[in-house]
Amino acid sequence: MLAPGRSYLLTDGRYEIRAKAQAKGVCVTVGKSLPDVVNEIPGRPVLIYETDNLSSSRLRATKKGVQRAALAPERGLVEDLRAVKDDAEQALVRCAAQIADRAWDALQPEIVPGVPERRLGARLEILMREDGADDKAFDTIVASGPNSAIPHHETGERVLQEGDLVTFDFGALYRGYHSDCTRTVILGEPTEKQRAVYETVHKALAEATELLKPGASGEDAEKRAKEIIKEAGYEKNFTHGLGHGVGRNVHERPGVGKGTTFEPGHIVTLEPGIYIEGWGGVRIEDLVLITKEGREVLTGAPRPCSPAPPGWRAGPG
Amino acid sequence: MLAPGRSYLLTDGRYEIRAKAQAKGVCVTVGKSLPDVVNEIPGRPVLIYETDNLSSSRLRATKKGVQRAALAPERGLVEDLRAVKDDAEQALVRCAAQIADRAWDALQPEIVPGVPERRLGARLEILMREDGADDKAFDTIVASGPNSAIPHHETGERVLQEGDLVTFDFGALYRGYHSDCTRTVILGEPTEKQRAVYETVHKALAEATELLKPGASGEDAEKRAKEIIKEAGYEKNFTHGLGHGVGRNVHERPGVGKGTTFEPGHIVTLEPGIYIEGWGGVRIEDLVLITKEGREVLTGAPRPCSPAPPGWRAGPG
Repeated sequence: MLAPGRSYLLTDGRYEIRAKAQAKGVCVTVGKSLPDVVNEIPGRPVLIYETDNLSSSRLRATKKGVQRAALAPERGLVEDLRAVKDDAEQALVRCAAQIADRAWDALQPEIVPGVPERRLGARLEILMREDGADDKAFDTIVASGPNSAIPHHETGERVLQEGDLVTFDFGALYRGYHSDCTRTVILGEPTEKQRAVYETVHKALAEATELLKPGASGEDAEKRAKEIIKEAGYEKNFTHGLGHGVGRNVHERPGVGKGTTFEPGHIVTLEPGIYIEGWGGVRIEDLVLITKEGREVLTGAPRPCSPAPPGWRAGPG
Repeated sequence: MLAPGRSYLLTDGRYEIRAKAQAKGVCVTVGKSLPDVVNEIPGRPVLIYETDNLSSSRLRATKKGVQRAALAPERGLVEDLRAVKDDAEQALVRCAAQIADRAWDALQPEIVPGVPERRLGARLEILMREDGADDKAFDTIVASGPNSAIPHHETGERVLQEGDLVTFDFGALYRGYHSDCTRTVILGEPTEKQRAVYETVHKALAEATELLKPGASGEDAEKRAKEIIKEAGYEKNFTHGLGHGVGRNVHERPGVGKGTTFEPGHIVTLEPGIYIEGWGGVRIEDLVLITKEGREVLTGAPRPCSPAPPGWRAGPG
């Protein structure tokens, strides 16, 4: 809790030693409730709270407990402060993205028919952890065959088959910062339709990426990606937004769409996809830093904007 | 959302295919808001919501949007239903606990002076993932030397040293169910004080465990553990509750304390600890299932209630 000239950290006995050691210059209270602490502040303070992050039961208890303070709801105060990443933060996201890249490279020989999705998800996570990630950034998605038509498929027991589209959505957590990357591969020689869908998604990603720079609008980038997908006849098959900010959370500000004007230090994903129920889907996602001059693609360091192409064959075969 | 004779699943385009495939007999709505759906229900329904799980911003939007429904706050309806685990759920928690046990066994040769905490945490998580865990149950704690005095220490760069107390708090996630286990080891020959503290905590765990059976109270178990720690002169050094329920969440009902009467199917941790700032600490935690006849300790399968004793030396030395 921040007050003029004073900051408070409310914690309990489990965190007492650590809070006192790490929270220098902060008033650490142990085992006190929020109303307890607010009631110690003289005068009639205004208690600003984040409505997205305070449960209705905690709001009720706070309203009941505070005596003189007025309560003022707010949204996104902290998230707004976090939207622009400084150099140290950019370095951590870059590092997380590189860990994920290396895991992806190392996984290639294992992406072969006969392997269950679940195994490949575990392997990606283990490879990232072995390489210094503190965690995966989120539950890894491995969506094979018809499952690739499900944008947020829950990785399961399905075994990869020759001819499958297989989508991998994965990222690393490194010192509190996340990365996010999606690649789709085709197991074997692509059909004409697989090739066409893949190339449409790839083009949507590439052209939307080209638009990113300081002053550009998220809406324009999203519009461009949607146009390309619409021109190819798949307007109804791109069922989610183009992207989102990434940092301390894997989904944070800025959004990529209406109302966003990019600034240097924004880090966002671009992740167009085409999903066809019963057939499969393709999604390709890059993580992009807005720089003073334009942009830097943080994912796929050695091959920016050129993920595994159609016809690419994973594994030793 | 449950209504008389009808259940609703509100989702968006990303989950549409999966929801329709998996939520049989449920009315799946895509892209509709909660007020949209509630307003379609005829009459004047009562909308019960869980106050701990609805943010104040969502509550505000719901209140604003629903036209005829009355809103009724509730707490813990779902959590109460989840407190007793059926046979299938017990089997999943048992399986999670066994994965963690095997990882613990496999880690032993690596617990040696010179290794950083962070490395051991990563290794435990990798061993569990390799062995079929879907994830760790929570961020693994490895707290060495003075850090072991911090109950929820954040695993870091400190390197293990001869003479250290080292506390490991870890668990596996298996098919949606969690395990939770803590072991403390002493690197080398224990001092008299280390031995005394260890034996006190171990006794508190063993005697509290003996009390668990259907009809027993959580308060009595907690009291017994606290008495033993108090008798040894460490009353002020046990700074948290004795335990908590475990299942779909790593902290859920029932609590272990006032107000809890145990029933067959409850699964709880018992985790007494003694924490001495600047010196170190000991915590030992078992996961216990209440059975019809009494209890079953789910952690440490081959050595119930006898975790690594003082004087135990990890590693090849």
